[in-house]
Amino acid sequence: MSLMIDRLAIIGVGLIGGSLARALREAGSVRSVVGIGRSRANLDEALSLGICDEVTQDARRGVEGADVVFISVPVCAIPAVVEEIAPALAPGCIVTDGGSVKAAIVRECEAFTPAGCHFVGGHPIAGTEHSGAAASFAKLYSGKRCILTPTERTDTAALSKVDLLWRLTGADVCFMEPEHHDRIFAEISHLPHMAAYALVHAVGSADVEGENVLSYTAGGFRDFTRIASSDPVMWRDIALMNREALLSSIDGFSASLAELRRKIDRADQTGLTEFFTIAKQFRDGIL
Amino acid sequence: MSLMIDRLAIIGVGLIGGSLARALREAGSVRSVVGIGRSRANLDEALSLGICDEVTQDARRGVEGADVVFISVPVCAIPAVVEEIAPALAPGCIVTDGGSVKAAIVRECEAFTPAGCHFVGGHPIAGTEHSGAAASFAKLYSGKRCILTPTERTDTAALSKVDLLWRLTGADVCFMEPEHHDRIFAEISHLPHMAAYALVHAVGSADVEGENVLSYTAGGFRDFTRIASSDPVMWRDIALMNREALLSSIDGFSASLAELRRKIDRADQTGLTEFFTIAKQFRDGIL
Repeated sequence: MSLMIDRLAIIGVGLIGGSLARALREAGSVRSVVGIGRSRANLDEALSLGICDEVTQDARRGVEGADVVFISVPVCAIPAVVEEIAPALAPGCIVTDGGSVKAAIVRECEAFTPAGCHFVGGHPIAGTEHSGAAASFAKLYSGKRCILTPTERTDTAALSKVDLLWRLTGADVCFMEPEHHDRIFAEISHLPHMAAYALVHAVGSADVEGENVLSYTAGGFRDFTRIASSDPVMWRDIALMNREALLSSIDGFSASLAELRRKIDRADQTGLTEFFTIAKQFRDGIL
Repeated sequence: MSLMIDRLAIIGVGLIGGSLARALREAGSVRSVVGIGRSRANLDEALSLGICDEVTQDARRGVEGADVVFISVPVCAIPAVVEEIAPALAPGCIVTDGGSVKAAIVRECEAFTPAGCHFVGGHPIAGTEHSGAAASFAKLYSGKRCILTPTERTDTAALSKVDLLWRLTGADVCFMEPEHHDRIFAEISHLPHMAAYALVHAVGSADVEGENVLSYTAGGFRDFTRIASSDPVMWRDIALMNREALLSSIDGFSASLAELRRKIDRADQTGLTEFFTIAKQFRDGIL
């Protein structure tokens, strides 16, 4: 399997974009990398770390002559980036992204991609608690999944190239429809974040004779609620971009919580043991 | 501060009971320790590790002549243990426990404690993922909270002695009413477990075009749902013993989740940012 990208443009040279550039460099699959972003300090760091050969804050100038453009900016900004760079894309250029919501992004980005260029939606399932170019490393994607979300409009050759690109980073690539991706991630990622935020909101607001109950929390509560420390603006955007699927996931969870409440209310010993055992089996099954 | 226990009986020589015995030995505050339990293998281990000077499977014989009895068995079994040992308790003996639910336990144990003996409810907030005598260590309680839950029936001298006993382990002791304890722990411990079980139950049962969505989970989901791998029978008992407070905590959480759902449904950007920010501030405040 071989791939040679002449000029790779990375828009957003953080953990995700920087690690992709590093991995493709290490695979010997890219001749030059141009880093594009808003923060001058982060771009300078990407340059001095050797992630990029050149950097610019001007996205249109940056993508000129690129054969592949990778966009890793906040989900709600991805379509606007494609709209902005569209006039500057070289014929045949492949534009792909790393956003964690797909249906809305793919629909809008396909519409903004000019004729003769190709958009392929993607979502690498990898990350750490750190961000920025300095946090990136070549092995981030090794052994991790990367989901590509082609539609009937997706160019087959472009899809193969993006598939190969991710496999060169060590990722296991799979394909699925954008809407299917969003339903899965509503369940396993977006819903848990909503549940954690709602739980901390409820417990933090709980009035137990005027005492701050959070002062009694121990390790278990801290681990369980860690994801409620995530960036509020990022999660607002994800929640709104995956609204339909997320509402349906919240409804499923509310029904499950209501069922558990009923069993506790009725002191249903058998029902509770069964409910907890089924959940434990699901949980132990993913270890 | 000094305390000398002539004979300490530990009923349930696991992580909690074993660590208390070790800590009091290390403080030089106990002359002899008798270990009581159902598992012969665990008792033999407690003996060979030097946690206990003698062991027995017969609780009544074990508590004879003890001036302090500590009970660390599953919450629903604690009152029955007090009922069983009551006839064998020496006059003036202090019985205390380590159960994570207090109102029901204290009420029943006080009723079973014979005249001339004293019951003091307690809950050390400490633990690890391991169990059994071999997992115990003297520093388990160092710097951790221990909550004692006296009532108007509690003997003042007995309470002072149990207070001192826990301070000798390095714990920070505080007092609160049993019902107040249960409302706090319904919020910060019992509710998160119910939420985790309900979430895993819902996500594991979710039908996304017949695909097992759990196969796509990554580290975040695993961390968030770790507590759903807890022992189903233990959590059934805790849920039922703290039923009233837990139902009210679940209602608070359901209301918070419903509020969040409404904001997503209405695409309320400002409301969502505010909701997530408040939750993040609560969460960051407990770091």
